[in-house]
Amino acid sequence: MAQDLSELDSALDSMGVDGFLIDADSTDSDQLYLSGFDAPDAFTTLYADGVHLLVSSLEYGRAKKESNAETVSRLSEYDYYEKIAEHGPEAAKNHIIAEFLADHGVESVAVPARFPVGTADGLREAGVTVRPDDSSVLVGIRATKTDEEIEHVRVAQKANEASMRAAEDLLAAATIEDGLLYYEGEPLTSERVKEEIEVTLLRHGAALDETIVACGAAAADPHDRGSGPLAANEAIIIDIFPRDKTSKYHADMTRTFVRGEPSEEIRERYELTHEAFDAAFDALEPGATGEDVHAAVCDVYEAAGYDTLRSNPNAETGFIHSTGHGVGLDVHEDPRLSPSGGELEPGHVVTIEPGLYDPEVGGVRIEDIAVVTEDGYENFTDYPIRLVVDEE
Amino acid sequence: MAQDLSELDSALDSMGVDGFLIDADSTDSDQLYLSGFDAPDAFTTLYADGVHLLVSSLEYGRAKKESNAETVSRLSEYDYYEKIAEHGPEAAKNHIIAEFLADHGVESVAVPARFPVGTADGLREAGVTVRPDDSSVLVGIRATKTDEEIEHVRVAQKANEASMRAAEDLLAAATIEDGLLYYEGEPLTSERVKEEIEVTLLRHGAALDETIVACGAAAADPHDRGSGPLAANEAIIIDIFPRDKTSKYHADMTRTFVRGEPSEEIRERYELTHEAFDAAFDALEPGATGEDVHAAVCDVYEAAGYDTLRSNPNAETGFIHSTGHGVGLDVHEDPRLSPSGGELEPGHVVTIEPGLYDPEVGGVRIEDIAVVTEDGYENFTDYPIRLVVDEE
Repeated sequence: MAQDLSELDSALDSMGVDGFLIDADSTDSDQLYLSGFDAPDAFTTLYADGVHLLVSSLEYGRAKKESNAETVSRLSEYDYYEKIAEHGPEAAKNHIIAEFLADHGVESVAVPARFPVGTADGLREAGVTVRPDDSSVLVGIRATKTDEEIEHVRVAQKANEASMRAAEDLLAAATIEDGLLYYEGEPLTSERVKEEIEVTLLRHGAALDETIVACGAAAADPHDRGSGPLAANEAIIIDIFPRDKTSKYHADMTRTFVRGEPSEEIRERYELTHEAFDAAFDALEPGATGEDVHAAVCDVYEAAGYDTLRSNPNAETGFIHSTGHGVGLDVHEDPRLSPSGGELEPGHVVTIEPGLYDPEVGGVRIEDIAVVTEDGYENFTDYPIRLVVDEE
Repeated sequence: MAQDLSELDSALDSMGVDGFLIDADSTDSDQLYLSGFDAPDAFTTLYADGVHLLVSSLEYGRAKKESNAETVSRLSEYDYYEKIAEHGPEAAKNHIIAEFLADHGVESVAVPARFPVGTADGLREAGVTVRPDDSSVLVGIRATKTDEEIEHVRVAQKANEASMRAAEDLLAAATIEDGLLYYEGEPLTSERVKEEIEVTLLRHGAALDETIVACGAAAADPHDRGSGPLAANEAIIIDIFPRDKTSKYHADMTRTFVRGEPSEEIRERYELTHEAFDAAFDALEPGATGEDVHAAVCDVYEAAGYDTLRSNPNAETGFIHSTGHGVGLDVHEDPRLSPSGGELEPGHVVTIEPGLYDPEVGGVRIEDIAVVTEDGYENFTDYPIRLVVDEE
């Protein structure tokens, strides 16, 4: 990754600290981004005149080969086993990190707000100044993607489209009996459709463990992932946010389908959501804020008489989430298209995902993924927006 | 889960604090275990006279339905938006957690060592005593499984065996040309075998994103997941550690295969590893320590002239990891079958996984999963231990 870390340098200057320190495994995206090292167990990354890693002996060879780091040290160089015997494993590691920092001439560090308090307390006892970085500087840096990162998201989105196609094909192939969908003689369930989606993702080099296939009242709760038999004539929300297994970058897309005949209520909500979706894209450009884009969606919904979290912060029906979010190493990252969303810049990769929810009716949501460009945006989603699934 | 939290009560008593606090999403297994709530974004769990959750409005309905908690509060009850406007989002949340603790009469908390320092500093500023728990009390509690948890691991292990079978079948179906394996006219790669494993896992209700299929020199690095074409006549390590999608519990199993004719060196190392594996199981019983079981393996290897980390802490070839680990919500958890491994108890679910590594030869490893019982252990792995794959 051709990273531009100049904002990190400025942040360290303004915080008056010598370096930036991360103690996490690579499921922490700041860690993966800064270290360039994918490892299942926690390791230590120092940014101070370049990137320096401190890893276990087991990871040493791989870290030297695969990471971004200029130097790689291992715990065993610091009398790890002697220190464990003396202090216990947790405290031993903290002593070693303090020595590692001293070896790099670092007496004070900024750390992510979610840096482990055990390590922070240990370093502070050893005389190191540890300042949580409330500005989430790396999250801000990660929001703006390089061309290479944008390409990673595009690749993940291709896998996403193939898996959405597999899901829609399954709905199309279903038969309807007593209001329920059947496939190959069995009730067609959320679980079965998710399985098809996730298998298709694997066949395309991507993975996801938490697909949403939610029908009826379940779809009215935006965080319900759905379970059990799928019904005819009801809205089925399918939200797929896979991660490419090689690049580790995500994509994100949602479609809402009805197999059978949607009620007039569902049709109207779908059309209105499509209108809100278009309004969001009309507002999406560099210089606009995430708040502007979110407001465009709220305007459409509120004008039609629906609650939004803007008009009613305690709303439990209507438009009850934000309009979108950045996508990258994390599936939800900056920038936010929400009341707190700041200025949009070229290279921001974001979702646009308005939706309406009511347990009495069900849920509808439409979501594409796009990149903000110099003069607007490029939507790199290639999947039809259509409510009713054709019978096969 | 019928959890026995009496050890947590004792730990809080001996630390002299009012409660135990977690601020994490449910990828943190302590959080998932204590809250019983599976959520993608960080939320707060307090243990003090029962379990109490503090979640976002979006998660409120689901938390009430699905979690273990006696009470569920939401951020919006604490003037979240006003506080964000005044303090920013991070500090707002810390103010709210402090008020939430006060509402439960809690002035001092123990927290996991990896609790976020940003939250800890915020709570300390608000006058709350925050003590990192170096004893990892919840990790210790989680090590002993209930019958229900053991059943979850068994179910995951069935999926594991099906996926190992799919992988071995692929090796068996391959043809050999110029020392490489081919399948359907293409070189058979690590990636292709992993895809088959992961698809099979999905078809059995489990998932894994990090399967190890490593051949030759790659297999000599225990943390190398493998990539590229697989060779004939070389040792291929396949290590599968799926998570059941419903229960979230893991299984873990490794086999080493050769398609073609193994060298005498590989055969000898495999036989010796099988011997070390048997020695470990002979030592596995309640009252023995993890260190005892690990020592049984080191004895076998050292007697045959190989380095272990016991005989040479800096060894880069030989037996260069520990003998096994607990398996549950985390794939690696307590107890440890290692130099620091403590006393084994009935209900401990552990792997036994000796192996030998040398870049000149490749790697071999054999791993089963078992539960410690009142009078020994029960190995619930049902997969043959055999080096050479029969040609199909």
